[in-house]
Amino acid sequence: MIISLKETADKLMAANSLILTAHVNPDGDAIGSCLGLKFMLEKLGKKVRVLIDDDLPKFLSVLPGIDTIEKPENESYEADYLVILDASLDRVGSVIEKCKAPRLNIDHHRTNDKKADFLYLDAKRAATCEIIYELGKEMGVEFDINSATSIYTGLATDSGYFRYSNTTPHTMRAAAELMETGIRPEKISEAIETKDFDVVQGMAKALQTIELHADGRVAGLFLDHELTESLDTTEGFIDQVRVIDGVDVAILLKAVEPEACRVSMRSKKTDVAKIAESLGGGGHIRAAGCTIEKPFSQAKTDILKVIEESLAE
Amino acid sequence: MIISLKETADKLMAANSLILTAHVNPDGDAIGSCLGLKFMLEKLGKKVRVLIDDDLPKFLSVLPGIDTIEKPENESYEADYLVILDASLDRVGSVIEKCKAPRLNIDHHRTNDKKADFLYLDAKRAATCEIIYELGKEMGVEFDINSATSIYTGLATDSGYFRYSNTTPHTMRAAAELMETGIRPEKISEAIETKDFDVVQGMAKALQTIELHADGRVAGLFLDHELTESLDTTEGFIDQVRVIDGVDVAILLKAVEPEACRVSMRSKKTDVAKIAESLGGGGHIRAAGCTIEKPFSQAKTDILKVIEESLAE
Repeated sequence: MIISLKETADKLMAANSLILTAHVNPDGDAIGSCLGLKFMLEKLGKKVRVLIDDDLPKFLSVLPGIDTIEKPENESYEADYLVILDASLDRVGSVIEKCKAPRLNIDHHRTNDKKADFLYLDAKRAATCEIIYELGKEMGVEFDINSATSIYTGLATDSGYFRYSNTTPHTMRAAAELMETGIRPEKISEAIETKDFDVVQGMAKALQTIELHADGRVAGLFLDHELTESLDTTEGFIDQVRVIDGVDVAILLKAVEPEACRVSMRSKKTDVAKIAESLGGGGHIRAAGCTIEKPFSQAKTDILKVIEESLAE
Repeated sequence: MIISLKETADKLMAANSLILTAHVNPDGDAIGSCLGLKFMLEKLGKKVRVLIDDDLPKFLSVLPGIDTIEKPENESYEADYLVILDASLDRVGSVIEKCKAPRLNIDHHRTNDKKADFLYLDAKRAATCEIIYELGKEMGVEFDINSATSIYTGLATDSGYFRYSNTTPHTMRAAAELMETGIRPEKISEAIETKDFDVVQGMAKALQTIELHADGRVAGLFLDHELTESLDTTEGFIDQVRVIDGVDVAILLKAVEPEACRVSMRSKKTDVAKIAESLGGGGHIRAAGCTIEKPFSQAKTDILKVIEESLAE
């Protein structure tokens, strides 16, 4: 059942005990919205627990209250509502079975599966945290440095620090009001941007493989099996390629198996979802991926050929 | 003479013709404030020219009106005011001699030399563009997509896309209001982040030299003379080091001559201005630099020793 912002606030205010959860593989918006809402509800005298069925990313360890987040144990949890934030019901892991309370879902993803008992969805918002901010106003809770820092972190991470197309004047004004509590943006951004030394070293190795193709309209990192095996993560590597002047399609190709390569693509003009789909993958127009069941050199030749044939004019 | 925002607006509105300029080696705030003010003054029927005594960075070519910016010719320029933006008088090159009009200086740098005939200085603002926004309000000019894009770009670049400690709620609200004109933040950020292929390739080479010292509290890129010579720029390279988990002081050392090395430092805790000063350089607590008149290996040993002795607890 779709409900309004006011109805969502009314339900939260009528409850005594709440369990909050968010999607597995949690990001700044998932954790920020759980903690932000938790701090606000506690101000209203509610009993609140946050359950996340996954490990938390290290960069969020600066968030106030991060240590209060629990992993679901092998037991059942009672509450007036299970509040599912920033995700559909099927993305919160075992929490959904372990807590049978009525499901109150708050989300900004257009793709929400709408299976919750009560759903407040606003896809115009850059982050679920932007909705949590609105809920705070609706419930009449004053933001403090704890709730504000949590909510601000979700706004900042989901909007790429206010750079992505989802950023609206409303996002900026919400951030402004939250900052009035004394948030130090440089401390939050420092935490978000922190990388392990191994990751920077790995990126240096990966960047050695950079190649330009199609008169500079395609650029890629091509990591053979040995190099791929040596890397813990390749997160963010493609962004170093995406920013190259004149490049439309950026590729990251990883030989994850001797006979299978994972391809990620980003684009400025070309529809890379179409390219990915033609190879059995999928994604969005500007960010897509697929797996090519071939050895490194062959996969590289194949993907370059398909992209060059599909480049937007 | 120090004047108020209102007096600044009054002077601009009383003038018929104005020449606007900003510092050499212009950045987003210098050019954004010139163009933003130009668009607003033209709306008020003024005759406005922008003179910049330098080449313009390529990433600003997306700005509306960028082609109207002139380099000063070998002649003299007449106007009711020479408006110097985002700089002291001694940083605008030959414009200062070629235009003898009364100097109206608008700046946010605490270090302004206060030599202008009229100075409006507000060091609380993240960017001179934030003052231009306030001037627009004071003069009662409605922002349009042209003036707003210019001003927004200065806000975004000088605040590191709203991440640095100079970003205030006022900065965010100014950006929000400017965005109402239809600014697309993803287009501006894409332009700002664009790098040449050579620069990315150079960064890949430089990153190969990365080293951790002092139990991971110091990290650096150490570019010998050959590598330094092969690079067109090293701008932004130190940021890749600065973000490493646990690193307090990040170093970029370049052997600019066989017997001279240029050192840049960034820090999270340690006072690197003090370190730089002890070696004849200078800067801010968190960002400083110096030149060591020694060959590469010796300079590297020296700087590491001095830093390790000065690390903050």
